[in-house]
Amino acid sequence: MSINPRIAEAIEQLKLRTYYSAYPENPKAYPEEANEAGKLAFQKRLSNKFEELQSEGAVSWIGEEVSPYMQVGLGIEYPAFSVDSLISSAVDAKKAWSHLSPEKRADILLETLDKITGRFFEIAYATMHTTGQSFVMSFQASGPHANDRALESIALGLQELTRFASDVTWVKNMGKFDLTLKKNFKPVSKGVGLVIGCSTFPTWNTVPGVFANLITGNSVIVKPHPKSVLPIAIVVAEMQKVFMAHGLDAKLVQLAVDSLASPITKHIAEHPSVKLIDYTGGSEFGEYIESLPGKTVFTEKAGVNSVILESVADPKAVFGNLAFSASLYSGQMCTAPQNIFVPASGIKTSEGTLSFDEVVNGIQQAIVGMAENPKMGPFTLGAIQNDLTRNRVMETLGSLGKSPVSAQVENAEFNDARIMTPSVVAIEEGDKAIWNKECFGPIMFVVKVVNADKALELAAFNAENKGAITCLCYSTDQTYCERVEEVMNAVFTPVSFNFTGAAFVNQHAAFSDFHVTGGNPSGNATFTDALFINRRFVWVGNRYA
Amino acid sequence: MSINPRIAEAIEQLKLRTYYSAYPENPKAYPEEANEAGKLAFQKRLSNKFEELQSEGAVSWIGEEVSPYMQVGLGIEYPAFSVDSLISSAVDAKKAWSHLSPEKRADILLETLDKITGRFFEIAYATMHTTGQSFVMSFQASGPHANDRALESIALGLQELTRFASDVTWVKNMGKFDLTLKKNFKPVSKGVGLVIGCSTFPTWNTVPGVFANLITGNSVIVKPHPKSVLPIAIVVAEMQKVFMAHGLDAKLVQLAVDSLASPITKHIAEHPSVKLIDYTGGSEFGEYIESLPGKTVFTEKAGVNSVILESVADPKAVFGNLAFSASLYSGQMCTAPQNIFVPASGIKTSEGTLSFDEVVNGIQQAIVGMAENPKMGPFTLGAIQNDLTRNRVMETLGSLGKSPVSAQVENAEFNDARIMTPSVVAIEEGDKAIWNKECFGPIMFVVKVVNADKALELAAFNAENKGAITCLCYSTDQTYCERVEEVMNAVFTPVSFNFTGAAFVNQHAAFSDFHVTGGNPSGNATFTDALFINRRFVWVGNRYA
Repeated sequence: MSINPRIAEAIEQLKLRTYYSAYPENPKAYPEEANEAGKLAFQKRLSNKFEELQSEGAVSWIGEEVSPYMQVGLGIEYPAFSVDSLISSAVDAKKAWSHLSPEKRADILLETLDKITGRFFEIAYATMHTTGQSFVMSFQASGPHANDRALESIALGLQELTRFASDVTWVKNMGKFDLTLKKNFKPVSKGVGLVIGCSTFPTWNTVPGVFANLITGNSVIVKPHPKSVLPIAIVVAEMQKVFMAHGLDAKLVQLAVDSLASPITKHIAEHPSVKLIDYTGGSEFGEYIESLPGKTVFTEKAGVNSVILESVADPKAVFGNLAFSASLYSGQMCTAPQNIFVPASGIKTSEGTLSFDEVVNGIQQAIVGMAENPKMGPFTLGAIQNDLTRNRVMETLGSLGKSPVSAQVENAEFNDARIMTPSVVAIEEGDKAIWNKECFGPIMFVVKVVNADKALELAAFNAENKGAITCLCYSTDQTYCERVEEVMNAVFTPVSFNFTGAAFVNQHAAFSDFHVTGGNPSGNATFTDALFINRRFVWVGNRYA
Repeated sequence: MSINPRIAEAIEQLKLRTYYSAYPENPKAYPEEANEAGKLAFQKRLSNKFEELQSEGAVSWIGEEVSPYMQVGLGIEYPAFSVDSLISSAVDAKKAWSHLSPEKRADILLETLDKITGRFFEIAYATMHTTGQSFVMSFQASGPHANDRALESIALGLQELTRFASDVTWVKNMGKFDLTLKKNFKPVSKGVGLVIGCSTFPTWNTVPGVFANLITGNSVIVKPHPKSVLPIAIVVAEMQKVFMAHGLDAKLVQLAVDSLASPITKHIAEHPSVKLIDYTGGSEFGEYIESLPGKTVFTEKAGVNSVILESVADPKAVFGNLAFSASLYSGQMCTAPQNIFVPASGIKTSEGTLSFDEVVNGIQQAIVGMAENPKMGPFTLGAIQNDLTRNRVMETLGSLGKSPVSAQVENAEFNDARIMTPSVVAIEEGDKAIWNKECFGPIMFVVKVVNADKALELAAFNAENKGAITCLCYSTDQTYCERVEEVMNAVFTPVSFNFTGAAFVNQHAAFSDFHVTGGNPSGNATFTDALFINRRFVWVGNRYA
């Protein structure tokens, strides 16, 4: 069976790692009426049952999502199932699916992505009103970027599943005669996969595992965060429809909705039929998932991302870039910087040396300036997903004797949006208890260190001990940059150098950037390398005399 | 840098999975005088220090190998090092090595294999007098077959390390302008690798991990079984010489010899600098290795291999084949069958039905016939590696009220060889305590089951619960064969069907058969799939604005 040319192209692009997007990220690339239609579709869902999912066997209808923009419940209810019925449906659905050829599975999965494309705007509004992301980020992250990441899984999956001959005649000359055997080699799927979503990126972080499980012949149970269900519910519903259209069991992918009061994640994860677990979320639960015996686990946990400021050409451009990276979705991205290590003597710039305090003020002012710009502020910051995040940042500030930065952010559309402008707090190298742990949300620490060597040392220490998904380094000294690359890479942390303008450390592009390396405590897997695929199945060979 | 054409050919052969051997397995393919020279070289080692390894910093010279053919100590002593010095040398040696390009590393590693080729006969005698393997098996397994497996690691390693572009210019159109970034993608090695050898296959089971670690930029400490040191000592010595000739640190690979009385394996394994562990041996220690936090572990542990006898065309050919598979190295191969499941009603053959008892007797007689054939017996059985194996089999037989089978095996060359002909013991389906555990060595159980369905059920149960590396099925019913393939593959066990003549279930060919699937309790890794390589390094990407 031949490989679909669109997937063949994706396989090639994965190797090249240059810019490639199969699903345009600009909303204007889509039909003009799609935006209004998507908004309307979203609005119609409010205070209603979500009826698009296969609901046979549901034991109840539940839902507890709250819009961070309106701070009112969405009132959408989803079918809830018993863990046993989720598992037994997943086991049943896997049978026929795992017998399809990888090429056929790839074709069907590609079709699901095409169908999801038609829902991008609705998914965007759903993402906005569950995560608090801005509209544009919601559209891009949950729509085209998520689809691109899903396509990556399909493409690399198909490449791995077909990398060895499937049937061969093996002939060995034994001197006076030939020994001939017929052999086959099969990628055997592991079983049921559980994919545990997070509240901030309900589709982008979920679909890579979902599609990697499916392309390798496994079935999937998606356990969304109870506060971020709708975006992935739409995705799962579209997938179920495509499976049914092909005469397959819709429950090849299921949505396992639960509530904060009665969580079911552990029950599913510990079930013996669940062989694969993908997880995005906090480190404590992630370490529990990693500790489960007999499971193949892929995690993205917390990290502490560093900025190393050694010297800069144009401080204004640097402060502006840092301000944007810190403000984008109010620091609620796993790629957002937290600690900025700055030498006590300040940093060299083309305009002379800037003192440590000038650096701290420069960054904070850039943030406030952007936040108060009505054309930028509300659309960059978005909203805080939940009160826990806001309260954690408030408590941290309080414990340091600080107040949150004051900025007048006006969101004309949503007066009740949960908004918080990132605060920049100067601390000392000795304040290890502060800089050596994740403080998720709109806050950054500028850590005064003795010199640039110490900055690198602490950034590497952070990464090795607490994990890091990104590192941003500013230096005009090439030798120093090379050393930063060497030292940070050795603790399995990627480095972005001298980003200004439209280059932001937060953004990891599909088909090019590996997201999370898997080599430090921020996670044990990456989007998307060969391990992300190969750990989901086992090669088995048979021989016939 | 271009890929060495010999390695490019090996990469291609790995994909095709047809017969391929870069190192001829027939001793006669090597220079005529090589055999005598090898024997003489081996004999000269006896009662002497092994001086070929880098011994600077050795704290003592130790050795306790015993020839299973002569049952006397070899008297060879090897340099022993402190764990701290082994680790610090490995950490130091890794630095320059990990900075070489993958292509350069591949070239150097290929050169080590070529040098090892010149020692094949000496390695063969060393293997014979440490493991008890016959001369031909010793030559093949420790020489050409081991080199082929090592070449597999180099080839697949180089393929994986170069699968993504290493440097790219990434250009994204942003509407009014282009965003351009320079990116690099690096496979970053994990650290020091420990490879723990076993007593029966001191090179074949060790070199895949050694070469996989090295090609991916890690350094290696080889911890051989204290009773099987010499074969791998010669290999390591040749490698060290090649590294030095290239101006590299010889201690990129080190031999960590210890004694049964003062084992050092756990000390090395638990050291924080040791990031990778390859292990071949018993399940209990293997599970300890797998449980170590923060290590990337590759294991081959014990398994219970099954034969399913449903119906046969030619019983004599089948019994002969089973007899050979059971007798080859006296059942001390991890691929040897242990349990033969046979329906109580017997099996259909082209000559009518054979009763259960006739099957048991037929297999035992075929074994005794071969053992007593002076041209076959001693050269098939070899010798028992150690008294523990013999005693375990004796005890098992005693507990069942049986005596070991009586056979007159004459080894004209070695009167004192530790020889034991495999016993065939009939047991019942209810004797689960016997058939549901590994009994390593010259013994097979023929398990009387209610029917062929039960035979398959128990074989799958064995594999899923105790692990299995092989399964051999005899059936003339194609539908039954298909079901066996389906069911056994689902518990990640390969099946060989209707092997007679020169096809033996024990033999796993490099470049074609996956050895151990990694999917059941017999081990968590396979020779050689992409996981065997990719788990040894981490992809890290950097971006420059």
